[in-house]
Parts: sequence; C-alpha cells; structure tokens
Amino acid sequence: MKKQGSPPLKIDRLVPKVRKGLTVVITGHGKGKTTAALGMALRALGHGMRVCIIQFMKGDLYAGEWDGVKLLGDRVELHATGKGFCGIQGNPYPKSEHRANAQDAIQLALEKMASGLFDMVILDEINNALQLKLIDLEQVLEILETKPPLMHLVLTGRDAHPLLIELADTVSEVVEVKHAYRKEIEPQPGVDY
Amino acid sequence: MKKQGSPPLKIDRLVPKVRKGLTVVITGHGKGKTTAALGMALRALGHGMRVCIIQFMKGDLYAGEWDGVKLLGDRVELHATGKGFCGIQGNPYPKSEHRANAQDAIQLALEKMASGLFDMVILDEINNALQLKLIDLEQVLEILETKPPLMHLVLTGRDAHPLLIELADTVSEVVEVKHAYRKEIEPQPGVDY
Repeated sequence: MKKQGSPPLKIDRLVPKVRKGLTVVITGHGKGKTTAALGMALRALGHGMRVCIIQFMKGDLYAGEWDGVKLLGDRVELHATGKGFCGIQGNPYPKSEHRANAQDAIQLALEKMASGLFDMVILDEINNALQLKLIDLEQVLEILETKPPLMHLVLTGRDAHPLLIELADTVSEVVEVKHAYRKEIEPQPGVDY
Repeated sequence: MKKQGSPPLKIDRLVPKVRKGLTVVITGHGKGKTTAALGMALRALGHGMRVCIIQFMKGDLYAGEWDGVKLLGDRVELHATGKGFCGIQGNPYPKSEHRANAQDAIQLALEKMASGLFDMVILDEINNALQLKLIDLEQVLEILETKPPLMHLVLTGRDAHPLLIELADTVSEVVEVKHAYRKEIEPQPGVDY
C-alpha cells in the first residue's frame, strides 16, 4: 500500500491530576451494552488494571466473551452466575431460582469489591435483575456506597433505575435504531453472543 | 460465600441455521461506542474468529485498548491510523494531513477485507471521519459493497450518515444521559481512554 499520510509527531498520554473511580451505567434497549462494558474491561487491562466481571441472569447460553476473556490472562475474571432471562418464553426455571442466583451474584460483587483486588468491577445485566425484582434497590445502593473510591464500577442492562442514573457519574442509553433480528436474521456469533 | 443458587441444568449454544456477516453501526454522542466495538472483538475472538480493528483519527493520544488488544494474541490486530480529532482545539495538524491519514485507513480497510483473513473488521470513528469530509461517502459505500458476505463489519463514531444507517443490519445510537466530564471530572484511564 502506498501511504499518503504520516504518523503523528508525538503520542500524548493523558494523566488525570485527580484519580477517581467512576460509576458508569449503560442502559437502553439497543445492542451494545454488554459489549461496551467488555470494551472497558479491555481498555482497563491495557492500563495494567485488574477487572472482575459478574454477569447476572447469564450462564445458561454460551457467549463468546466467556472464552474471549480467557485470552486476556489472569488479571481478569468472569463469573456467569445466572440461569437465563427470567420471564422470557422457554426459560424453565421458577423466579425463586433466578432470585437465588442473583442474590449470590450480589454477595459475590460485595466480596470482590471488598477484596481490594480489582480496579474495575462490571455488573452485567444488574439493571435487568433489579427491574425484575431478583435483587432489591437497597442492595444495589449498598454496592454503590461501599465501592472503593478508586475502583470503577460499571452497571449494565436495560431499564436502569432512576436513582442509579442520578447517582452515577456517566450514563449512556443505547437506543435501538434498528436490529437485524427484526429482519428475521438469527443471532450471529461474534456480534450478538 | 454461602450460595443460595445452583448452576443451570445445561448450557445451550446457539448455532444460526444461516450464517451472515452483519454490518453494525454504533453512533450517537454518548460514551460507549468504541468500547462496544472492542467488546464485539472480544466476543468474536472467543468464537475463534480473527479481527482487524482500524481506528480513524486516533493515534496521537494513548488509549488503553492499544495494549489491551496485545493481550489477546495474534488473531487480532489494531491499527491507529490518525492524528487526533481534526478541528478540535489544540490539534496541530492541517486538515489535509488528517485527510491523508484517513485515506490511508480506507485503503487499509479495503486491503484487510479483501485478504479474506478476517471474520470481523472494525472501523472505529469512521462515521466521524466521513462527517468531517476526511473520506467520501462513495468510499464507505465501496467498503459496504465489497464486504465479504460472512464477515462482520462494525462502523463506529457519532453522526453516522443516514445512508449507512439505512444499509446497516443493526444500528444503535448511544445517547449521553450524563457524562462525568460535565462535573469537571477529568478523563479517567480504563473508562474514558
């Protein structure tokens, strides 16, 4: 390839004067919430950080990130703690079982945060779990309150609670403009799972 | 930790009857577009796929994903081809230089797609580059038209062109609900870069 351009004269590196662990909420009904959190994990790992990912409600359906994360080495761990999406057609488990699993996920999150071992904790689909009453608002508030000041906390899932939006530092709503499944295209590996 | 829940009885694995390479656009002004694309890369790598990430306009400012991606092994490559955000305060390069770099990025994208080596190609900030006229609509259309049928193509950046939204299979708009920088919190490593 014949290049027209040239590299930048120098590469800068941002260093914040004040370090702060952010609370980030990624909500909305569009595609890209879990992957946005996974991308933050990749970014954090690039900075030498350690990351814990806890997936609520997921665990019964293979997702590429389970193996993707293994490629990243021992500074990241992923726990898929659930039994699928409670209440959707075909899911065979009673709500009480979904709640028991989500309660375990909350305890795991509190333990991982308290361990001091992680620079970023991602609670994937926790918004969903709260909306479905598999966990209680007080429990999520406890997580926000006990978050170590320098640790980043990322909460994903549709229908984020208004109080969490109020308390978070950065909130994005991923809006569905269009989605392949509406054209009868099946979920595709790499993109959808 | 005393567990209340139990694992799912079985783990299912989706296998689409018809495989299709999707064109995905992640646009909007909120935080999470690049990270959503990086998360798709992680997901794809977990499925054993090979991924090429080409960042337009980025290259002058260190981002954690540059080192994060290196942890993932040799099935992924990342090219930061730019010299920063054209037109923003403090950027020292004339528009002609930004355009030369973006033109290189387009050629690189066409070559990588034509190589047949990749299951997913991510063109990060290409929407931005188009909106700033560093590249032309016809060039992006050529990319969409020459995309191998089974290859996933992911286009990110704010202000996606309406025709790209029309042609894409899945489009998400990441809306900013709030952002830490509006509270005078500096960009933080791991989350913002």
